[in-house]
Amino acid sequence: MPFGQVAIFGPGLIGGSIAMALRSHSPKARISVWSRSERDLREVSTRGLADNVSTDTAEAVRGADLVVLCTPVQAMKDLAISFAPHLDNTTVVTDTGSVKVCVVDQLIPILGRKFVGSHPMTGSERSGIGAAREKLFSGAPCLITPTVETDPEALRTVSSFWTLLGSRITTLSPQGHDHLVARVSHLPHALAFTLVDLVASSLPADSALMAGGSFRDATRVAASDPSLWAGILIENRDEVSKALREMSGRLLSLASTLEQEKADSILDFLTKAKEHRDSLPLPSPDETI
Amino acid sequence: MPFGQVAIFGPGLIGGSIAMALRSHSPKARISVWSRSERDLREVSTRGLADNVSTDTAEAVRGADLVVLCTPVQAMKDLAISFAPHLDNTTVVTDTGSVKVCVVDQLIPILGRKFVGSHPMTGSERSGIGAAREKLFSGAPCLITPTVETDPEALRTVSSFWTLLGSRITTLSPQGHDHLVARVSHLPHALAFTLVDLVASSLPADSALMAGGSFRDATRVAASDPSLWAGILIENRDEVSKALREMSGRLLSLASTLEQEKADSILDFLTKAKEHRDSLPLPSPDETI
Repeated sequence: MPFGQVAIFGPGLIGGSIAMALRSHSPKARISVWSRSERDLREVSTRGLADNVSTDTAEAVRGADLVVLCTPVQAMKDLAISFAPHLDNTTVVTDTGSVKVCVVDQLIPILGRKFVGSHPMTGSERSGIGAAREKLFSGAPCLITPTVETDPEALRTVSSFWTLLGSRITTLSPQGHDHLVARVSHLPHALAFTLVDLVASSLPADSALMAGGSFRDATRVAASDPSLWAGILIENRDEVSKALREMSGRLLSLASTLEQEKADSILDFLTKAKEHRDSLPLPSPDETI
Repeated sequence: MPFGQVAIFGPGLIGGSIAMALRSHSPKARISVWSRSERDLREVSTRGLADNVSTDTAEAVRGADLVVLCTPVQAMKDLAISFAPHLDNTTVVTDTGSVKVCVVDQLIPILGRKFVGSHPMTGSERSGIGAAREKLFSGAPCLITPTVETDPEALRTVSSFWTLLGSRITTLSPQGHDHLVARVSHLPHALAFTLVDLVASSLPADSALMAGGSFRDATRVAASDPSLWAGILIENRDEVSKALREMSGRLLSLASTLEQEKADSILDFLTKAKEHRDSLPLPSPDETI
């Protein structure tokens, strides 16, 4: 499906990468970029990533077939209220937020059946347009979260948009999404931040200098934007806190097994985990940062 | 310090990489390799990594200035008993095990003051000589664990050996080592195995397909050799179980903070962790696998 005009709100890592990928995969598509920051818009223009930039939401959505919200989740409701009256009847809106129940609950009353939530499962511990790259979505999963109310045509538009950018699409409910990502994304982030904190507060200052690759990789995403992640963890707090309690219980149980020197149980546990990990066709580090 | 002859016991990932690095940094050093497997020794010979290979421990250590034990920790005591009578008076012995108190306690009575424990903090989730590489130690930390009994000359020999291979050396007690690595290495491994198990057992089978880079990196080392890691976790069980209980408590506390919607506390926690993570001069993924 060709896109005539796409409006991107928030030209950061995700928004900037969408503009770059669109330029590459759909060179005829016109790109309109909104930001509240004039400076960010100048940067977008300098990089040749937009045909039109604006700090005015109404101007940004004018003529757009598709609006993609790439701002922090907390900003989406007010933006939607501000541009909703200026959308065409056929304009489809999607977002890229890392939580879906709260976004969908807030935006459907404002935007109606033409809104479909989505969540590209890719990114970087770095943020901002300087970290954006054309292939960020290539081969990466993208979760799309329609509800019973969603317009089927809008769902097709959003699906074809992410497919165009190279994503592997999965469709699930907003609730299913939040349950899943609490465990495969938010929990790994929480573990990374917590592990850094544990090492920083319980060991001498130079201890991390002695760490090898396992600590580096386990904590890579602890370099992520704290305000973005505070927002995500708070918005998905019910599922994240369940996942944290589940993980906490499993660690205690592993500690007990070790204390009882149950070598066979430990070996069995590690063997099954390795088998599962080996069976996963995870994206290679080259595919997603 | 030039090395005339080095004996390597166990030509796997670590032992094989030592042979490759020695060939590169000290081309005149003779390399003797011991393995209980004829097949592994043929592989070593084919790759040109040894001047002499043997399944006989006495033959392997003959004429060696330095013996490096790269086998699993559980095998070291019996090997030491078997080759100890055949060492020269000046032969120094070190090992590369991931735990140090138990190794040092077992080997000093057998090998005396010429034994110095060491632990190169590098590796890979892959194992075997096929995963070995010349630059495995380059820029990576190496912890050396002398005791009050250690011969200072033996300590200098072992230090200069790892420096020759490109490692960054830190010296600490066996107890200090086990406390430290329980947190910066064994805990990250335990978290990786546990996170894979949690996702595998509580989500639909295809869920990990929807995971992004954070899950991939958080679980990379869950692909490590289970029997090697069962051994390490059991040998260092006191410190590892303390670290697991500490981590478990911190995750519960984070869950409570989220449930109470204390957004400021969450932001503060994430900000401090990010600052600490950003301050670490960790090895880049290019330097250690």
